[in-house]
Amino acid sequence: MLSDSVVEGPLPNTQFQRSWAEIAPIGRDAGTGGYLRYGFTEPVRQLEEWFRDTAVADGAHTVAQDGNGNLFAWYGPAPEHGNAVLVGSHFDSVPYGGGYDGPLGIVSALLAVRALREAGREFRRPVAVVAFAEEEGSRFGVPCLGSRLLTGALDPDRAAALIDRDGVSLAEAMGGRPAGARPETLDRIGAFVELHIEQGRALVDLGAPVGVASGIWPHGRWRLDFAGEANHAGTTRMSDRRDPMLTFAFTVLAANKEARLRGAHATVGRVEVEPNATNAIPALVRGWLDARAADAGTLDALVEAVRVKAADRAARDGTTLGLTQESLSPSVEFDGGLNAALGRVLGEGVPVLPTAAGHDAGILAGHVPTAMLFVRNPTGVSHSPAESAGDDDCAEGVRRLADVLDELAVR
Amino acid sequence: MLSDSVVEGPLPNTQFQRSWAEIAPIGRDAGTGGYLRYGFTEPVRQLEEWFRDTAVADGAHTVAQDGNGNLFAWYGPAPEHGNAVLVGSHFDSVPYGGGYDGPLGIVSALLAVRALREAGREFRRPVAVVAFAEEEGSRFGVPCLGSRLLTGALDPDRAAALIDRDGVSLAEAMGGRPAGARPETLDRIGAFVELHIEQGRALVDLGAPVGVASGIWPHGRWRLDFAGEANHAGTTRMSDRRDPMLTFAFTVLAANKEARLRGAHATVGRVEVEPNATNAIPALVRGWLDARAADAGTLDALVEAVRVKAADRAARDGTTLGLTQESLSPSVEFDGGLNAALGRVLGEGVPVLPTAAGHDAGILAGHVPTAMLFVRNPTGVSHSPAESAGDDDCAEGVRRLADVLDELAVR
Repeated sequence: MLSDSVVEGPLPNTQFQRSWAEIAPIGRDAGTGGYLRYGFTEPVRQLEEWFRDTAVADGAHTVAQDGNGNLFAWYGPAPEHGNAVLVGSHFDSVPYGGGYDGPLGIVSALLAVRALREAGREFRRPVAVVAFAEEEGSRFGVPCLGSRLLTGALDPDRAAALIDRDGVSLAEAMGGRPAGARPETLDRIGAFVELHIEQGRALVDLGAPVGVASGIWPHGRWRLDFAGEANHAGTTRMSDRRDPMLTFAFTVLAANKEARLRGAHATVGRVEVEPNATNAIPALVRGWLDARAADAGTLDALVEAVRVKAADRAARDGTTLGLTQESLSPSVEFDGGLNAALGRVLGEGVPVLPTAAGHDAGILAGHVPTAMLFVRNPTGVSHSPAESAGDDDCAEGVRRLADVLDELAVR
Repeated sequence: MLSDSVVEGPLPNTQFQRSWAEIAPIGRDAGTGGYLRYGFTEPVRQLEEWFRDTAVADGAHTVAQDGNGNLFAWYGPAPEHGNAVLVGSHFDSVPYGGGYDGPLGIVSALLAVRALREAGREFRRPVAVVAFAEEEGSRFGVPCLGSRLLTGALDPDRAAALIDRDGVSLAEAMGGRPAGARPETLDRIGAFVELHIEQGRALVDLGAPVGVASGIWPHGRWRLDFAGEANHAGTTRMSDRRDPMLTFAFTVLAANKEARLRGAHATVGRVEVEPNATNAIPALVRGWLDARAADAGTLDALVEAVRVKAADRAARDGTTLGLTQESLSPSVEFDGGLNAALGRVLGEGVPVLPTAAGHDAGILAGHVPTAMLFVRNPTGVSHSPAESAGDDDCAEGVRRLADVLDELAVR
């Protein structure tokens, strides 16, 4: 059983629906209903404008970027007071993604602050709502870009030189080099809680609208460059070919099999082909491997098994394999003390779940006590226009996040 | 042994080198050295301008388009005289293709006409050099676009609605609907000879600079649409996935195997993925199958075997398969009488080769006596920047094409 909520009187359902309707059209593709909200593009700027207006209307005394694209709205005592409670998530989406992954955590944080304000509660600790930049990595290839920069996990000069698919650098997109590590900001944060839509069906199976995260599987991205020899698809004898599409295809199937054998996850969801012409054997096929496992040893073994199988096949195909690790997120255990506090607030029966998805909370967890709340996802689908959550569950998420904020920053 | 050439005195080597140097920079990508000469784009317009200037300087009395993007330069008796000899090829390239596939046939035709003129020969039949439009089909997806329109093999309304990757229609690119079948033009043509760089290494093995084509394998293009369910690459259990990348990969390997079993050719060189994000299981993977075989029965059996294997795998993956034939070019036997004339001119020892590549000559062959000449390709590579031919072999091609023109249009 979940405990009672501090939020009484008018339920936040209608407020949630109104806020959600305000941002729903921003960056939505008319044809598919999917979102194109990439970091540092016009849709995200519009969402940030909405964030700023909403926060100020609800009593934020300061709304400011941190030089890394992360936007903070501060409430209650001045940030200099320290030991602040941070709540929030990210606005950006994967290509043609759903609307909940990220924005739900920001909207819920803004509405939780409002609910406490309307309930007459006063913050004794500084509270900030944060919108992290480019969490999905869909534009510049590095997930959790904003939180990695803030914590110093990503070098700002390396980040500045990242290039999107149109050849635009991050420095160009941001209007300058990012600031990089901001220890003076991190030092002021005493706890971070990220609310997120669940990206699976565990809460559906458990019949619970809200759950708490135990930790995050280690995971990473590897770029696979298969190089062969461009040639005419019609006239080149099969035995004369050095076709990297074959090596790529074999590797896709091998990665799937190796992941299944280990109870791990492997996906090849992005491909680039040169020259990508129907009647030309490719010169280059580039694929990206997303791999995740319950522990680092299993993840290492999975990627190594894929590498060995791909290299063997490349030797047979007369092609070459290049394997480049583009990112690696180690295993994360969320803060025991903070999770205990969440258990007190949300009740003994609240489900505790691991997740295989990366989050800004996973990056912050290495620096400040961090926790996550999940909201039930009826289909379990995410990173797709089919991603959804019920309004009642979303409102319950707002109430529960308000309870957590009340426990941490008011009592 | 090849017979002596009608072209005496100054050899056309230096003329070939000069012409080749004039067009070499047009549409060449600085980074790869490959060509981006798509139909109805600026590089092709520049090449057509060069064609026009060259033809007029060498005595062409008329240079005109046929309403389908095909450019004709007429020499000798008026076209109305009929029984004309047509020589030429195409200017357009595959993406990042070589410079010889197509342009060599046009440049050689222009220089062959010039060589005969400088040798004081007079045409008793009309002669036209032709630059066919969009032979590769790299922009609008239909190979031999110009020759198919001219002969009525492609409906002009269907063609007008073809869309390139940027959403531009052929009608927009051409500035209007194409004219379609031009029987009055075809009726005036008594023979067509296309010179082309060889797209294999048979002439290298035979030690011959020039060869004659016997025919063209039947071949076609099929679009394969694999549809699944977009979902999060990290959090979706392997057993819950409907991942079309797996079905695609399996099909790539199956096509390769089925082609080898039949002594046929199968290639998947072009892929599109939606949403094409590293951390998203794709909703859709679209691949294009290029298949060719020595006869129509083998080609049908190959495509059917690939379809069955792909459909079986789709059922296992929880995905769906859509198979759409985008083009089909039937088997072509070149004209026996014309090839006998080529044998007389070029000598008994001239090699006669089949080819698995489509050409405008294959389209014209259904309407007028048609033949092809091949020029040796040292590496056998084509549709790639590595495609090349020696200047001496190219000059020999000009001489031999001049001999053929002399035999057909002068004597």
